[in-house]
Amino acid sequence: MKKILFVLLVAPLLFADSLASRAYEQGIIPIPQDKAELQKMVELKNNQINDVKIQLGKMLFFDPRLSLSGIISCATCHNLGLGGADGVPVATGHKWAQNGKGINTPTVYNTAFFTAQFLDGRSPDLSDQAKGPMTDPNEMAIDPATAEKRIGSIELYVDMFKLAFIDDDNDEVTFDNIARAIAAFETTLITPSRFDDFMHGRKRALTKAEKVGLKVFLEKGCTNCHNGVTLGGQSMQMFPAQGKFRYAHIGSFTGDEFGRVRVPTLRNITQTAPYFHNGTVWELTEAIMIMGEAQLDQFISEEEAGQIAEFFKSLEGRKPEITYPVLPPTKLR
Amino acid sequence: MKKILFVLLVAPLLFADSLASRAYEQGIIPIPQDKAELQKMVELKNNQINDVKIQLGKMLFFDPRLSLSGIISCATCHNLGLGGADGVPVATGHKWAQNGKGINTPTVYNTAFFTAQFLDGRSPDLSDQAKGPMTDPNEMAIDPATAEKRIGSIELYVDMFKLAFIDDDNDEVTFDNIARAIAAFETTLITPSRFDDFMHGRKRALTKAEKVGLKVFLEKGCTNCHNGVTLGGQSMQMFPAQGKFRYAHIGSFTGDEFGRVRVPTLRNITQTAPYFHNGTVWELTEAIMIMGEAQLDQFISEEEAGQIAEFFKSLEGRKPEITYPVLPPTKLR
Repeated sequence: MKKILFVLLVAPLLFADSLASRAYEQGIIPIPQDKAELQKMVELKNNQINDVKIQLGKMLFFDPRLSLSGIISCATCHNLGLGGADGVPVATGHKWAQNGKGINTPTVYNTAFFTAQFLDGRSPDLSDQAKGPMTDPNEMAIDPATAEKRIGSIELYVDMFKLAFIDDDNDEVTFDNIARAIAAFETTLITPSRFDDFMHGRKRALTKAEKVGLKVFLEKGCTNCHNGVTLGGQSMQMFPAQGKFRYAHIGSFTGDEFGRVRVPTLRNITQTAPYFHNGTVWELTEAIMIMGEAQLDQFISEEEAGQIAEFFKSLEGRKPEITYPVLPPTKLR
Repeated sequence: MKKILFVLLVAPLLFADSLASRAYEQGIIPIPQDKAELQKMVELKNNQINDVKIQLGKMLFFDPRLSLSGIISCATCHNLGLGGADGVPVATGHKWAQNGKGINTPTVYNTAFFTAQFLDGRSPDLSDQAKGPMTDPNEMAIDPATAEKRIGSIELYVDMFKLAFIDDDNDEVTFDNIARAIAAFETTLITPSRFDDFMHGRKRALTKAEKVGLKVFLEKGCTNCHNGVTLGGQSMQMFPAQGKFRYAHIGSFTGDEFGRVRVPTLRNITQTAPYFHNGTVWELTEAIMIMGEAQLDQFISEEEAGQIAEFFKSLEGRKPEITYPVLPPTKLR
């Protein structure tokens, strides 16, 4: 409610730039500059975030021992150096298995803002989501008991769990807590960009070409779905909704029970090719033109697509600095 | 020559602790505290080290696009969070291939000090070595032309090569230069430890138990091979030399043309199980007892092995802080 009031009443007054206020009016929200406000937006249910939990979660995120083989970590596919994804069409996991439905790895950056996790939206939050890839036989392929045994055999981890979960119901090395810690780390993977600076009033944060692109983006109605703080990730939508998706025959993913797919975020989209749930499109402009066709039932010209793609450059975020974690040694046998 | 004079004449005077001077006498050298002295030890032939090259090399070390699949990087097997190795018996690479000879991934830490690279010593230095895993069909499986094309298509990389190789014969994105940059980064992967502090005169840097272990280590003659600054990595040795290696039947690696194997470093050895070229032994004490049997033709009791293993804790090094590199995006197709 407060957010709505802010968008309707305060924002237009604060941000005289008509383009920024139009973006606000169409439902786009910048990443808050205020740390407390940001924390509030990414907080997790039944999962108190604290510094130890974030540090623990980072270690677990990078720890390949959470895969059955011992060589795949969350960071393998959600490569924090490559826009939080892997840059290949289909996610590859345990014993080189391809994702069961031929799904492309979505970025992990800014997912803490999403209202639903996974492309079919089957998971309510990150604490739950993190369990999926670990146990998927085509991804990390571990069973919860083995994960608990491995992590629980490492003294440093046991101690860190006690501190990390001091305010929670349970401070043991359980599979749920492993996922909770990873989720806590993931809430820090937020990438404010020049677009946010612009929305916060720094008019010159966007180039002229990016402003042109934003205008086209707003006019075309992309914000019907690509809205909120992540310009996506806020709702489930039919896909395709209006026309046809020309690469629909590739992969077997059909969305949720209603055929709906979670709208992807546009943050860092220039850094996460290939596009679509099946990773079939490498060119951003082609993806934009397809979206006009498949979702909006309107023609987006190559020129317009190029303008929108130009705007997307302003969504390339400043990544949090990640110090590669030194992990406690153990024996996997 | 200067080094020999230092060891013979100066060191014993400086380090009154008889245990440290005995270690010096048996050929063990600490990692220099003096930065210039250290730089001199790790310099590369025909490969000027500078900050840009180190940064570029770090990016390439973490860049999975240097594998044919786009999902395996140097860091996949040489995990800097896991002692510079992967913690599994046999290296796993392209399409889940196991290493052709069943070889265990050796650590990348401190390899800049080695006199030969690869377990069979077939490569003279890191600039040459780095090309091996990239092109091995069971590892990263890329061909030089593809690697050059991918990296050369990224403007940021092209610019960085120009700066990184400003003092070299060629500043282009060639496969040789890709390897050279990675090698430059690897020269920074040095891990001084409490043992070095001890050798530099801080008597209390080692616990009593570690000193006992060091004494046993020196008395048993382990330093015949495990000497120099990396307590290993300085020579090729027959393996097994005296007795039998009870797990010799596993894997097909037989060393160089003479049946010799490069002596492994003992730095961070507590963090790089499983042991031996074929990764067959998980317990450090068992590995130590086997070494007595196979190499020294002498019985090392379980107690003595435990004491030596205790000493090895002092070789757990301080790892350089690695900021996870943000990589420039590109399209792999």
